[in-house]
Amino acid sequence: MGGLRPVADVGIVGGGQLARMTLQAAVSLGVSTRVLAGNEGAPTTGVFAEVVRGAPTIERLEAFSRTCAVTTFEHEQVDPRDVEVLEGLGRAVRPGSATLRLATDKAAQRRAFAEAGLPVPAFAVARSVVDVVRFGGEHGWPLVAKAPRGGFDGRGVWFVDRAEDAVPALALAGGRLLLEPALLIEAEVAVVLARRPSGHITTYPVLATVQEAGICRVVQAPSGLPAALEAQAIGIAHSVAELTGSVGILAVELFVVGGRLIVNEIAARPHNSAHLTIDAAVTSQFENHLRAVLDLPLGATDLRAPAAAMANVLATDATTDPRAALPRALALGDVHVHLYGKAPRPGRKIGHVAVLGDDPHDAAARATAAADLLGAPGSSAEPSREAVPAWA
Amino acid sequence: MGGLRPVADVGIVGGGQLARMTLQAAVSLGVSTRVLAGNEGAPTTGVFAEVVRGAPTIERLEAFSRTCAVTTFEHEQVDPRDVEVLEGLGRAVRPGSATLRLATDKAAQRRAFAEAGLPVPAFAVARSVVDVVRFGGEHGWPLVAKAPRGGFDGRGVWFVDRAEDAVPALALAGGRLLLEPALLIEAEVAVVLARRPSGHITTYPVLATVQEAGICRVVQAPSGLPAALEAQAIGIAHSVAELTGSVGILAVELFVVGGRLIVNEIAARPHNSAHLTIDAAVTSQFENHLRAVLDLPLGATDLRAPAAAMANVLATDATTDPRAALPRALALGDVHVHLYGKAPRPGRKIGHVAVLGDDPHDAAARATAAADLLGAPGSSAEPSREAVPAWA
Repeated sequence: MGGLRPVADVGIVGGGQLARMTLQAAVSLGVSTRVLAGNEGAPTTGVFAEVVRGAPTIERLEAFSRTCAVTTFEHEQVDPRDVEVLEGLGRAVRPGSATLRLATDKAAQRRAFAEAGLPVPAFAVARSVVDVVRFGGEHGWPLVAKAPRGGFDGRGVWFVDRAEDAVPALALAGGRLLLEPALLIEAEVAVVLARRPSGHITTYPVLATVQEAGICRVVQAPSGLPAALEAQAIGIAHSVAELTGSVGILAVELFVVGGRLIVNEIAARPHNSAHLTIDAAVTSQFENHLRAVLDLPLGATDLRAPAAAMANVLATDATTDPRAALPRALALGDVHVHLYGKAPRPGRKIGHVAVLGDDPHDAAARATAAADLLGAPGSSAEPSREAVPAWA
Repeated sequence: MGGLRPVADVGIVGGGQLARMTLQAAVSLGVSTRVLAGNEGAPTTGVFAEVVRGAPTIERLEAFSRTCAVTTFEHEQVDPRDVEVLEGLGRAVRPGSATLRLATDKAAQRRAFAEAGLPVPAFAVARSVVDVVRFGGEHGWPLVAKAPRGGFDGRGVWFVDRAEDAVPALALAGGRLLLEPALLIEAEVAVVLARRPSGHITTYPVLATVQEAGICRVVQAPSGLPAALEAQAIGIAHSVAELTGSVGILAVELFVVGGRLIVNEIAARPHNSAHLTIDAAVTSQFENHLRAVLDLPLGATDLRAPAAAMANVLATDATTDPRAALPRALALGDVHVHLYGKAPRPGRKIGHVAVLGDDPHDAAARATAAADLLGAPGSSAEPSREAVPAWA
């Protein structure tokens, strides 16, 4: 294949819901795509034509990126050193290894942001219980310990009351922990932006996120933050974009602590906090991710309504059957349902619901009501599908 | 497979752009789909996973519909008698054979609408030149002759100045022609609605369509028609829906002649006139088609802006390369581009552009500007793709 033109405009590493929604946007733009799904990949496998299965080993990444004009990612489960190899082969990988090195390692991220003068919490990288004792002595207990790599949706984060509690965490995190004081978080927001290789940036309205047990439950816009803080949050996000040299969507999660902003973490890919942009913004984050990695003009990020909200559909248990709950959810009216085709497991994100309106809290209440119906336990008393004809 | 549950919620007969856009909507709803594409099927083949190729013979329709909880259509190239056979086997086919009999035969349609007291032009069904002479003598020359079956985008429509001109038309139309006087058309509108099996209907705002050489070029909303005429148009469309018993999207095209409405023709499927609903309406026609055929609650049909317009991208010739023109089209700002992945041929619809705004004429001008860029001849002086890396 060496001398051939690539078979796809964009290759996406990862076959989950972020790839699924990016592919929907690609269909509109007429952009051809391929997916390197992991070993699950349910949201894209069997739905889109060009889905390759298998873990993203360097061999697979090399073969995959060779067939794609641009390669991008929907998750952080990739080794930046592998991406560097691809770059050495002249492949267009967006975001690149420099961005991914910071996005995939929370400890490296903290250090780089602190050095750049961005507001971050007090932190230390612990390699032993002695380090944990020292940090706790300095900043008080409990403290928060995070696995620098691979954690998401509350996984890889531990509240540590006593130094001994850090022992299993250290083991689970591979011998390295990012330590921070337990913060009294007043609000949590995300700034999501798209950046082209040229450096041109467009930014979505600041999004307020509501987490439960480490999992994003609800997002709403406007954020409710004072305008000055919103402007500051956007400024920080732009600094992060420049610092990391990100291309594509970049999400910067921030905490408000003591009335001031601090950077929590970043994601260099489409982000759960901006799913509402599909229905509520002029251009969705997924379309803007594609436009950015292809170096196409970016689309407007304004909301189409005074307010919007999104609620994640979290499966209650394995009996959850969102498809069967569609009649009740859609009957609520003006709800935009997105299901991901994932097998239900307790607490698993299997979809989301977006609602537009005049007030973000009303929109959030409506979105949550629909999401709760879709995530509810299934019942054998209800038919699991609509419209199954008699012959089935 | 007789006793098995269907493998897909919805099967779509036809693999063109209407199927493509319906599948995008199905992905959001988590509704599983299969496509029985014809022998081309470029807009869906290679994009979505479950695409079966081949002409919709009764054998293929039987096998295909057996695997789908509901079977629906994206074109009129299907024989209603075949659909009746499927219904006899207990398959859920929506719309059903009764609707399709009228939608696929313009002569039967005219007769049924005239009998129901709906406003139609003077008409006759000619089987010979003698019939044409008689109709011309009664209603004047020129007259319009239409093939009752299979015509679209200006194909199967002839202006007949003298009786002899009807000879080739009669041959091309299989020995049967629908004759009408040549009308002085003041405006052309479409009413697009979705109807559930229960009879519940939701209706999109009336759409003004601009045709050039029999092909829809531009659509805009609001239609600009006086409110009384709009209300009458909607009333007529509802009558057509009841009369035909349609399920899914129904489009009723109407002419304004002498200040009065007459029904031109209908389509019992998602319709080109309502493509702007993807970006401009709360719920797109494609999602509402799926909801209707699955008997799910229908979504709101309001526009998200005071005005909206759509322009079809018509290929100038075989060198047209809309993908290469994306940078210039997107640089116009606030244009929603939809490309269909079709090979360019002179005058072929290969995509559309939607624009929202405050004024329908401004939106139409902007959409047309983008569509013209995308449909322009390709140039070897321009790179045919963005973002092809050096190694390609």
